[in-house]
Amino acid sequence: MSAKLRIIPLGGFGEVGRNLTAIEYDSQIIIIDCGLMFPESDMPGVDLILPNFTYLQDHVDKVLAYFITHGHEDHHGALPFVLPHVPAPIYATALTRGLIEVKLKEHGLLAMAEIHTITTEDVIDIGPFHVEPFRVSHSIPDTVGFAVDTPLGLIVHTAEYKFDLTPVNGETTDIHRLAEYGQRGVLALLSDSTNAERPGHTPSEAIVRETLERVFERAPGRIIISTFASNISRVQETLNVAAEFGRKVALVGRSMENNCRMALELGYLKAEPGLIVSLRDLEKLPLDEVAIVCTGTQGEPTSALVRMANDNHRDVSLIKGDTVVLSATPIPGNEELVHRTLNELFRHGADVLYSALSPVHVSGHANREEQKLMLKIVAPRYFLPNGGEHRMLCLHGRMAKDLGMADEDIFILESGDAVEFDGQGATKVLKAANGEYIYVDGKSVGTVTEAILRDRRQLASSGFVTPIIVIDRKTRRLVADPEIVTRGFVIYKNSAELIAELVQHVTGVVDRAAEGVPASAPSGGRRDRGRDFDRGRDGDSDREAADEGGGAGTNRGGATAELAERVKNSLSGFVQDRTGRRPIVLPIVIEV
Amino acid sequence: MSAKLRIIPLGGFGEVGRNLTAIEYDSQIIIIDCGLMFPESDMPGVDLILPNFTYLQDHVDKVLAYFITHGHEDHHGALPFVLPHVPAPIYATALTRGLIEVKLKEHGLLAMAEIHTITTEDVIDIGPFHVEPFRVSHSIPDTVGFAVDTPLGLIVHTAEYKFDLTPVNGETTDIHRLAEYGQRGVLALLSDSTNAERPGHTPSEAIVRETLERVFERAPGRIIISTFASNISRVQETLNVAAEFGRKVALVGRSMENNCRMALELGYLKAEPGLIVSLRDLEKLPLDEVAIVCTGTQGEPTSALVRMANDNHRDVSLIKGDTVVLSATPIPGNEELVHRTLNELFRHGADVLYSALSPVHVSGHANREEQKLMLKIVAPRYFLPNGGEHRMLCLHGRMAKDLGMADEDIFILESGDAVEFDGQGATKVLKAANGEYIYVDGKSVGTVTEAILRDRRQLASSGFVTPIIVIDRKTRRLVADPEIVTRGFVIYKNSAELIAELVQHVTGVVDRAAEGVPASAPSGGRRDRGRDFDRGRDGDSDREAADEGGGAGTNRGGATAELAERVKNSLSGFVQDRTGRRPIVLPIVIEV
Repeated sequence: MSAKLRIIPLGGFGEVGRNLTAIEYDSQIIIIDCGLMFPESDMPGVDLILPNFTYLQDHVDKVLAYFITHGHEDHHGALPFVLPHVPAPIYATALTRGLIEVKLKEHGLLAMAEIHTITTEDVIDIGPFHVEPFRVSHSIPDTVGFAVDTPLGLIVHTAEYKFDLTPVNGETTDIHRLAEYGQRGVLALLSDSTNAERPGHTPSEAIVRETLERVFERAPGRIIISTFASNISRVQETLNVAAEFGRKVALVGRSMENNCRMALELGYLKAEPGLIVSLRDLEKLPLDEVAIVCTGTQGEPTSALVRMANDNHRDVSLIKGDTVVLSATPIPGNEELVHRTLNELFRHGADVLYSALSPVHVSGHANREEQKLMLKIVAPRYFLPNGGEHRMLCLHGRMAKDLGMADEDIFILESGDAVEFDGQGATKVLKAANGEYIYVDGKSVGTVTEAILRDRRQLASSGFVTPIIVIDRKTRRLVADPEIVTRGFVIYKNSAELIAELVQHVTGVVDRAAEGVPASAPSGGRRDRGRDFDRGRDGDSDREAADEGGGAGTNRGGATAELAERVKNSLSGFVQDRTGRRPIVLPIVIEV
Repeated sequence: MSAKLRIIPLGGFGEVGRNLTAIEYDSQIIIIDCGLMFPESDMPGVDLILPNFTYLQDHVDKVLAYFITHGHEDHHGALPFVLPHVPAPIYATALTRGLIEVKLKEHGLLAMAEIHTITTEDVIDIGPFHVEPFRVSHSIPDTVGFAVDTPLGLIVHTAEYKFDLTPVNGETTDIHRLAEYGQRGVLALLSDSTNAERPGHTPSEAIVRETLERVFERAPGRIIISTFASNISRVQETLNVAAEFGRKVALVGRSMENNCRMALELGYLKAEPGLIVSLRDLEKLPLDEVAIVCTGTQGEPTSALVRMANDNHRDVSLIKGDTVVLSATPIPGNEELVHRTLNELFRHGADVLYSALSPVHVSGHANREEQKLMLKIVAPRYFLPNGGEHRMLCLHGRMAKDLGMADEDIFILESGDAVEFDGQGATKVLKAANGEYIYVDGKSVGTVTEAILRDRRQLASSGFVTPIIVIDRKTRRLVADPEIVTRGFVIYKNSAELIAELVQHVTGVVDRAAEGVPASAPSGGRRDRGRDFDRGRDGDSDREAADEGGGAGTNRGGATAELAERVKNSLSGFVQDRTGRRPIVLPIVIEV
């Protein structure tokens, strides 16, 4: 019994998204969830952020399995990126499996994946672990938490849950099973912290049904309901209410259509024959017998609802008398896009219902009183608040303390930290694994670095200025006037005077260099002041960035590189003094 | 009586900020407010947005006066930019005047400004207008609305207001005066729409006082309260509670210190001698006798609170046991910065109170029931919902309809639209003036265009790739391998293979051109698909942007420009196919 047990979150701790937690015993590893995260607004060009799977790659022979809690992308969406590097069988419930397969297929990886369907009746024995899925209620059906029995004790991972006692599909969180674990004795609880800032109890999905009924009762024309493509429960609710009020429903948007088709096939979405119709058939019906379910709650520019709002949807044009329901709240960071969409919907004269005005959405996560209930029922020896930004984990941890747990039994982790159990106690291991972001940009994974993002932020803020300097190899004199190439800084044709000044400045620097006049000190003070956009992430940017320019092969040779550097330093200061802006200045020196 | 009366909002209609409304009669104009707006996240590098004052410049001889409602920057902050172009006397209450003077001084414009202090006892006769300031309650003291009597009737502009009956400073909205206007008969009402999405009645400032009292009663160590530098009422409240509980207060942050000094001098902020102390004196006191009031509620990177959170404040280091209060809500778009700040505060072990957890802030704006009350009291003939994004104006307008107004008497405007009154009726004039954004970036006003912002967004998303192509003037052959200069795209040293491919591709294009092989068609389809980041603002971008590169003087001469264009088209497609990214490709062709 000398082996240790470790819980190593590689994503989802100190952040919302890219959930991945490794459980390791005696060098054998199982993984719970493998999700992705969407970038914040100061990560331009980044498409997705992955959990850092280098630890898993380093121990690839020890990884026994993936267990996926539910079908949201922040819990399974990184599989297409991680699975090729860390292959292992995947265990998931039927609906979750269906959604995973849709994604793997898109990436051409379905053939290589070994997937097992599990139910809450199963216990999966794998290596030293006995894994028991248990039912939890969330905003997508077929969500499960996992009870992982290990030689050192029972670990309970709640997944994302709430205690909704009247959910759409009847799937309530399995309180009896959780109580049984609590009585058996739980070593460690990992519990969803998302709503640790929200008091009370999350309202039931039944609230949304009441709102939808009022909408369907009164709407004079078409009803257009926008929700997450994965929110199968909300779609089911809409179908139920539509049937009740004699409307037909069209599903619009690629992801909405794909997910619903799959959910219908698997029986997770139920509709009487003829209730769901094509858009073409919908057009033949009177407006007050029509409903459309589509994507776009986050103001995503290519979503069905936003295309309708912007008058560029192929099939649906908004008209006065339409009622539009945004059945979701904006994810932090998406507010501006959502607000623009709402403004456009109002411009069409639509009657628009959204969360600020009407109970058209409820959270899928437990609020504080439910979180307390979970802690009480499971009564763990150790507690790891899971799934949230740092402040949410702290608030969840303090709640456990208020409920009587000792401070030292509560672990507030960042992705990459671990908790190690040795049969006696538990210890926090800071940075046990690499927990840094892995960025996906276009077709590349991991090639976008902080240095590139810094450059992008500077380019975004002020563009770039590239003086083209052609000098005589021998005399080091200009063979022609320098030329200024620029983007994102000024409009060339409107700025003849400024450009002339830049040319003159560069000419002066090159002339002085040719005459052997030493360079004046770079204007460091000014540049430092302008660095606020970096948000404190300074460091080796200049060095690495300089490598990008200089390494390109231009400015080669000591003297030429030196001249480029001299022009850069001098011109940067001049530009900032003259314009108050800080473009990237990247001189090109060519000898002929 | 043939002259017409026009209300022409040049900012603040269909947007939150840059409030400016012109009232024009018989070619004479008064201006109510002259504010600025902060940019949204897809306007990189933009510092501020101004109301479009070209209409005022075009009628500069007719502008009689500015009337400023209150001391928030979105109501007076554009004065330093507009006043030099459109000079006219400014009328403001004492505190508002103080805050305007602080700004004008910063811009070296105080000497040129003619400012008159007004009170709610005054009537200002100016041209055909009789202007009467009336008291309203808002989140800054000394706020006034304006009743503007004109030959065609009375216009009531509410300013930003709420019906707080227990405000800190006793300044309640003057219901009697408003009722008097209502009885006299009001032609048009302009009323604050900010909270048209919020039901009920905004809580009184008294609520915040109760929270602060609880905080001061219990906090074991220092108390750090962050609020807007202009929120003089909140500062007063903190001073009052600190005095009650025997704590001294330091004011931290340049704008906080400046504003409070001025408010103390003018008597808008009251403190017993010795209550406000310097940070140095504060350090000598026990922790539980200390309070700090500072800026930083919006997560602004250079604010006092954010510097403390990031461990780089010169004077204040956070310690366990500190209680930090963020007495504000995040302005939409600032959520990410605010959340990061909160996370850092929690990392210091501070007890943090913020609006999600505790009633530490109330809005300064009327909620829906108060908006109804205003409409009822003033009972206008025509209604112009003012100060809000389009959806808020619509909701405010629909509210007026619910209260019995006719649809055609309610005008939902965008900045630049006007309403014209002729003594008989009122007509909406679409785009009566230019209402477009005017951007401030660094030292320049109005030189940043949509084309520059498009380039910046593309640079932010994928950086740029500049092949340097040096060819023989006669043979059109490369005299050396092309070189690739890039930033924000890839790290050069990590991407040798890709760079080699780019060099090879460019070489091929130049060789084929030299051999007279016609260029293949540019890969238009691919480029179109990648344009989502543009959010529909396409149009003449390519033409204007191309001008920036080509106009720089490089690539001069038809053949050289043609080669540059050919390389650009071909390389853009290649890069996108190879990497999935869309950097700006800007070839430099040099003949030697």
